[in-house]
Amino acid sequence: MLFHQQSLDAIMGRAKVEGILFWSLENIRYLCGFSGSDGVLIVVGQERTFLSDSRYEEQARAEVRDASFRKYTRKVEGLVRFIKSLRVKRLGFESAVLPYDVYSRIKEKLPRVSFVPLAEEIAGLRIRKEPGEVENIRGAIRIASEGFSNTLGLLKPGVRERAFAERLECRMRGRGGERIAFDTIVASGTRAALPHGVASEKRILKGETVVVDFGVRYKGYCSDETKTLVLGKPSIEQRKVYEVVRRAQERAIGAIRPGVSVRQIDAAAREVIARAGYGKFFGHGTGHGVGLAVHEEPTVSPRGRGVAEEGMVFTVEPGIYIPAWGGVRLEDMVLVTARGCEILTVLSKDIKDNICVPRES
Amino acid sequence: MLFHQQSLDAIMGRAKVEGILFWSLENIRYLCGFSGSDGVLIVVGQERTFLSDSRYEEQARAEVRDASFRKYTRKVEGLVRFIKSLRVKRLGFESAVLPYDVYSRIKEKLPRVSFVPLAEEIAGLRIRKEPGEVENIRGAIRIASEGFSNTLGLLKPGVRERAFAERLECRMRGRGGERIAFDTIVASGTRAALPHGVASEKRILKGETVVVDFGVRYKGYCSDETKTLVLGKPSIEQRKVYEVVRRAQERAIGAIRPGVSVRQIDAAAREVIARAGYGKFFGHGTGHGVGLAVHEEPTVSPRGRGVAEEGMVFTVEPGIYIPAWGGVRLEDMVLVTARGCEILTVLSKDIKDNICVPRES
Repeated sequence: MLFHQQSLDAIMGRAKVEGILFWSLENIRYLCGFSGSDGVLIVVGQERTFLSDSRYEEQARAEVRDASFRKYTRKVEGLVRFIKSLRVKRLGFESAVLPYDVYSRIKEKLPRVSFVPLAEEIAGLRIRKEPGEVENIRGAIRIASEGFSNTLGLLKPGVRERAFAERLECRMRGRGGERIAFDTIVASGTRAALPHGVASEKRILKGETVVVDFGVRYKGYCSDETKTLVLGKPSIEQRKVYEVVRRAQERAIGAIRPGVSVRQIDAAAREVIARAGYGKFFGHGTGHGVGLAVHEEPTVSPRGRGVAEEGMVFTVEPGIYIPAWGGVRLEDMVLVTARGCEILTVLSKDIKDNICVPRES
Repeated sequence: MLFHQQSLDAIMGRAKVEGILFWSLENIRYLCGFSGSDGVLIVVGQERTFLSDSRYEEQARAEVRDASFRKYTRKVEGLVRFIKSLRVKRLGFESAVLPYDVYSRIKEKLPRVSFVPLAEEIAGLRIRKEPGEVENIRGAIRIASEGFSNTLGLLKPGVRERAFAERLECRMRGRGGERIAFDTIVASGTRAALPHGVASEKRILKGETVVVDFGVRYKGYCSDETKTLVLGKPSIEQRKVYEVVRRAQERAIGAIRPGVSVRQIDAAAREVIARAGYGKFFGHGTGHGVGLAVHEEPTVSPRGRGVAEEGMVFTVEPGIYIPAWGGVRLEDMVLVTARGCEILTVLSKDIKDNICVPRES
């Protein structure tokens, strides 16, 4: 049986299409193993064809499994010619990522083919991880954790956020990470109020909280984790905010088991923060799936859909961001198990393990 | 006058639209300065509005210029509400990147608005670089060159491709690069026949050619350069292939001046390679524009359109890839000037400067 053919058959059956055009590199890698950065996968029934240009020909021949390879010179024209040869009447496509322009150019050339947008229908294709995928995620987490632990000594008053981020990224790369999973966030002091504060030239100062959100890729799979460090003895408010976020995170993690809706998981964290009076300072969702993409299904938020299922891997990352004051975010990755969940990330999120005693550098 | 308002006015005038919805992060950064990773920019006449969610609120307020900020909770719904408030009849959109699904959801909710796909019309928006942009590109090139020069000593027989790539990336990051511009290519021996051979676990051996294609970002702008090194005394064929590629590159660079078509520039390189009998081993275009995106307009290929114009920045990167043998690619970045071009990259592409005397490590 081809990898995930059953899921594909089910999707094609429900959408009444003979095949699906895959455009996202993550789904392409998932279904046929190609790890390069340009190409298209077309599945028709049980036939899978990967199309790309000459730059990727040798790589495709070496990597692609369960699919034949076909070379094109011009992408859209090559696709049109191939789809025509398939003589299909209804072809589904990944509408969440296929650009409008590509769609309309293909459609124009193939007026007799019905192109069926599939968004929700395929959004969950990779949502439950296979054991081999979980191993790759664990590999990424291990590399990131070791990299972080080995960089922590650099965190002293006066160090620039960017210098810390660079060192961390290099340590992760040096331990076998293929590349960073996203721009490392190092947000200190009032910058910690930026949920996405990519490392800047700002110097980290004594007494500040420092939000570090980092991840790396291993065999295509991502890690994603956030620590908040306090550089010195926490103030009363720092400690309070930290403990609220920590309690929110623990509450959400405690709520996870198969069958629980993602909204309930989100609500578990959100309630703790709201009750402590910080509700308006937690503006994002509690978590998101992680796999070949650093953000994928499920979306664990007040508007998320569906329930936790065994094999899902997602983040639990509540935060409190107070403008002109700062912020705290704590993020772990969990694997949903038969009866609850396993926390995949290993670095401690307890405040006592995140206080850095500052020595002036 | 707002940045590039004239270009926008011209595009809107030709397309008979009252405004444009920008979706690509590069165009958003170009037009309003936002450097984060999620948001939408809507230009209507001279009014620019940047929309994003709470994660980016503080960043947007700090960075965005020439545009007002508007926060949404749900992206598509927020967009629909805002577009409705504009009361426009015809709105252009970036059809080369807007996903079909977003288009159709917006369209469905706003049936009275005509959404006009703009692809070719806006593809060239960033094609001519302002002096400040060229400075940023020079900054990226300087960081990459220094990083490369300081990593070269590591290149000895027995070193793994990935180890070399990691070190190079760290050196570039350490010198102020915001992040790498693309996955570093280190392709040695027969792997050099892969035009996009991302660094692998393969050990680099004595006598091999090593294609290293690397780049970094600085203030959002990319560098992109390829060196081919020979680890030891080049064989007769290595030298021959190298010299053909070098001549092709020089010929193409020599052909560049305002008014010359990109096809002519491509043909100048292609002819040299074809005449030497390697035509079928050069399967990609001769170059591409570089700026906020590592691949942008113009496309310098047999199917490219338009002519070189003063201020364009693009790569000149012919290559010869012989399956089971190896390959050579040489890539420089050039800036089109009033009378010709300036080579922006500084590392030598002459073979004599690219022979590494191997000492066993």
